[in-house]
Amino acid sequence: MASDSEKSLLAGLLNPTPQTDQKVVSKRRTFRRCKSAPLAEFLPGEINSTNEVQSLKRAESFFDNIHPSFRKVAIYLIFYLAIGTICFYFVKDQIKGEKKDGVLDSVYFCIVTMTTVGYGDLVPNSTPTKLLACAFVFSGMALIGLTLSKGADYLVEKQEVLLIKALHLTQKLGPTEILKEMETNKVRYKCFMMMAFLVVLIIVGTVFLVTIEKLDVVDAFYCVCSTITTLGYGDKSFSTEAGRIFAIFWILTSTICLAQFLCYVAELNTENRQKSLVKFVLTRKMTNVDLEAADIDNDRNVGAAEFVIYKLKEMGKITQEDVSLLLQEFENLDVDQSGTLSTCDLMLAQSAQGRR
Amino acid sequence: MASDSEKSLLAGLLNPTPQTDQKVVSKRRTFRRCKSAPLAEFLPGEINSTNEVQSLKRAESFFDNIHPSFRKVAIYLIFYLAIGTICFYFVKDQIKGEKKDGVLDSVYFCIVTMTTVGYGDLVPNSTPTKLLACAFVFSGMALIGLTLSKGADYLVEKQEVLLIKALHLTQKLGPTEILKEMETNKVRYKCFMMMAFLVVLIIVGTVFLVTIEKLDVVDAFYCVCSTITTLGYGDKSFSTEAGRIFAIFWILTSTICLAQFLCYVAELNTENRQKSLVKFVLTRKMTNVDLEAADIDNDRNVGAAEFVIYKLKEMGKITQEDVSLLLQEFENLDVDQSGTLSTCDLMLAQSAQGRR
Repeated sequence: MASDSEKSLLAGLLNPTPQTDQKVVSKRRTFRRCKSAPLAEFLPGEINSTNEVQSLKRAESFFDNIHPSFRKVAIYLIFYLAIGTICFYFVKDQIKGEKKDGVLDSVYFCIVTMTTVGYGDLVPNSTPTKLLACAFVFSGMALIGLTLSKGADYLVEKQEVLLIKALHLTQKLGPTEILKEMETNKVRYKCFMMMAFLVVLIIVGTVFLVTIEKLDVVDAFYCVCSTITTLGYGDKSFSTEAGRIFAIFWILTSTICLAQFLCYVAELNTENRQKSLVKFVLTRKMTNVDLEAADIDNDRNVGAAEFVIYKLKEMGKITQEDVSLLLQEFENLDVDQSGTLSTCDLMLAQSAQGRR
Repeated sequence: MASDSEKSLLAGLLNPTPQTDQKVVSKRRTFRRCKSAPLAEFLPGEINSTNEVQSLKRAESFFDNIHPSFRKVAIYLIFYLAIGTICFYFVKDQIKGEKKDGVLDSVYFCIVTMTTVGYGDLVPNSTPTKLLACAFVFSGMALIGLTLSKGADYLVEKQEVLLIKALHLTQKLGPTEILKEMETNKVRYKCFMMMAFLVVLIIVGTVFLVTIEKLDVVDAFYCVCSTITTLGYGDKSFSTEAGRIFAIFWILTSTICLAQFLCYVAELNTENRQKSLVKFVLTRKMTNVDLEAADIDNDRNVGAAEFVIYKLKEMGKITQEDVSLLLQEFENLDVDQSGTLSTCDLMLAQSAQGRR
């Protein structure tokens, strides 16, 4: 293949003026296409329909790897709560405060501790329980911070496709457009969804506290705010049995939601800053010094791919380390040292690996 | 420059056998260098000494932009605390609990609220104060989450260079090696530093509570744990005047430190996963389908830069969107449509922009 391309290259160079010979013209066209219009194949519309679907598939399989599957998160949580409940159930006489039902109180105490709400309506009252509570709050924080929040993020991303489909129902977007819309405004959608979810949780919590715990509206709202922020002064808390059952689910969901919402806001900030950096890099004038620095294969010309790599480095998306590592790998694969990879190179490289 | 390179290319193709003519040989050598050994200039050792220093400079100037300068963070904090103190000082009769000194209590209440520790030793006791507390806890959370934690991260990164220098004092590392070491183990160092700092803060807090607040050791440790995790049951808290002055500084520092530590642990996890993905991508065999997909300029050969871009996409470090955007920019700059950028292209592109 390499020699074929070289031939057409040669033909192009040797025949700089238009030719009537059909064969030469067609050869030359191949060459010109590669030299003058490397971007023709990369118009966003065309590329997205094929490559983005591929990249989605790859992203999803990658996604499954990095995100702990939801089952795993649930198992961790149940395991943590089970151990917590058993521990605190056995020392329930060493916990003082407003007690209702043994098992329920233990679960409730676990949730209030692991989410760091810490009302103080139930408080450890002996040295072992105090140390147990210390151990539980640290492990609970780590569990929420490292696992549950990722589970929440995973759920939100899954919902996002549905949301975008629903929002653009009238326009009947194809899968490509949905992907594009999702790619561009991903974090924004996440923020809005989480905010909507938070508002629902706040309303549900307030209504519950007013109806079941018989608090007045301001106190209920105050208790809701104090809970979801994990402030937990403890002057208002869940004191009925029904309230504590509700609290177990509601506290866990709402504290994670607020934390995740803040994460998304921070992500949105970073993204906006990244976007303005990209804009700056794109509009900045290239100088000769830039050209020289961008020239990876040192042929005194900067090809499309070299330009892309140089600008990506400038945007801070990749580092020189990434590039060096891959160039080394390229050198290993490029067995015939032609400076380009061909099918032939791959076969040689793989047979060489087999022999080793 | 483009024509010059084409000439040497032509010379190389026309003279495939070794020549004695000195001029032709030298021309051919230029060509061969570009075609057969594009990686010679990119051996890690050589590249790092020049490019990494450059990239550091760029990273630092970028750094100054994204990280709110420390002064800004301090101004936000002082502003928040000043407003908080004034507000809560005016409604101090509507706060019930263990009161000491008007202004001190207000600042202490602000800190306990904004960090979401919420001991409950001071509690709002009227509708306006309750709503005020709700507003303050949300803004305090946002302030800590979005600003202070970034300030902390900035400080840690600044310290890191000093730490690495100190650790390798006997080996006398040059700036390049320090940069390399920092680049590779950045997050790990951050984790260790934050952990060490946390241990110091825990010890200081415990000693203080034992000596000044006269708690026994277990209670002191329990109060420390309950505070830094923002649990704040409130059965043990800072009740003396000296304790509250200490608490103002200690609570703010220690809660931010623990949160930041968890962030670093999560970052380390992500980095490890990213590293194993990179390893997977590097060891995966290239197929013909990959070759075809990697070929940006469609010349049926995959150059070094094209290979790098393809693998970076596979690693998830860049997206097709990034590449498309930059290819479009490349097309704009490549005025003579040669498929490569030269000084001539840049001059033409810039004069064209001037005319527009």
